[in-house]
Amino acid sequence: MKKSIGKTASVFPMPVLMIATYDENGKVDVMNAAWGMNCEMDRLTLCLSSGHKTAKNLRLNKACTVALADQAHLKEADYFGMVSGNKTPDKFERTGLHTVKSEKVNAPIIEEFPIVMECELLEEVETEHLHCFVVKVLDTLAEESVLKEDGKPCMHKAGAVLFNQFRMTYMTAGQHAGNAWSEGKALL
Amino acid sequence: MKKSIGKTASVFPMPVLMIATYDENGKVDVMNAAWGMNCEMDRLTLCLSSGHKTAKNLRLNKACTVALADQAHLKEADYFGMVSGNKTPDKFERTGLHTVKSEKVNAPIIEEFPIVMECELLEEVETEHLHCFVVKVLDTLAEESVLKEDGKPCMHKAGAVLFNQFRMTYMTAGQHAGNAWSEGKALL
Repeated sequence: MKKSIGKTASVFPMPVLMIATYDENGKVDVMNAAWGMNCEMDRLTLCLSSGHKTAKNLRLNKACTVALADQAHLKEADYFGMVSGNKTPDKFERTGLHTVKSEKVNAPIIEEFPIVMECELLEEVETEHLHCFVVKVLDTLAEESVLKEDGKPCMHKAGAVLFNQFRMTYMTAGQHAGNAWSEGKALL
Repeated sequence: MKKSIGKTASVFPMPVLMIATYDENGKVDVMNAAWGMNCEMDRLTLCLSSGHKTAKNLRLNKACTVALADQAHLKEADYFGMVSGNKTPDKFERTGLHTVKSEKVNAPIIEEFPIVMECELLEEVETEHLHCFVVKVLDTLAEESVLKEDGKPCMHKAGAVLFNQFRMTYMTAGQHAGNAWSEGKALL
């Protein structure tokens, strides 16, 4: 029997996205965002509050990178969600992580996270009920060490993590459960 | 060293959302959607192609339910992503799953999936670069059997699955990796 658990955010899982930008002085800022998704194969929708340092930087440079947090850097990833770049200008430096400038967009790539998308801003959407940024993914880069022989990333090698908002915890990716567009064939 | 893996959809993980609606005759339709997320605590953004049966039904009834697929019904969940309700009117019936009408919105609740959100349509957004539906979550219901003593769902009890779009596979949720707003304290 089902019972109400209230109006909590109930989409599971959520990603742990590391959105990296430069400010007007070329200083790196990074935020931790769970409310981001593909809205096309090469396009993301990112729901960020309008006042975030990241929002300001995105408007300024029309660019960001979006990395997938990994277990090895969970402390840093979590910290990026705890501290505001508006209030703590040396937020990124405190982590000791490293960046290189993207070759495709005016945004930093954090070296330590294994998978990253290089994105340019397409549009800031503001409607009656939605505020978000829509970005185009120009390319996805991955550490060779997280790729399998087929050239595609392995989420276990990547140490990928996910956000469980029911419990405010991070979880690892579990086991293979089935193949998409395949398990359902039994019902065709 | 990072190398390009191309412009593939690279957000990981994605949810496996079961969006259920009624058509003009009260017939149940369900689709499988990975491109949905919270955009507020009680609001979802769902990126669905405009021609989907679900899109038509959402416009008609201004309501849907959004359930989290589980491992026990992965065959059915996957099937809902393989077949179009426009072309196969008895799509839902073929699965043998059961529904009850939501008490809060004009949409069906699939009994077999353990966690479900009852949603009303707020807005269909169509901008230059984004098409999506924004829905308000009126309530979330969960099977008592998937709740822990604290009243919150356990993703292992729920058999929650996620979508790995890099490999077109479903995965289970793994182990606890850390606490949000906690792991990062070491860097404050």
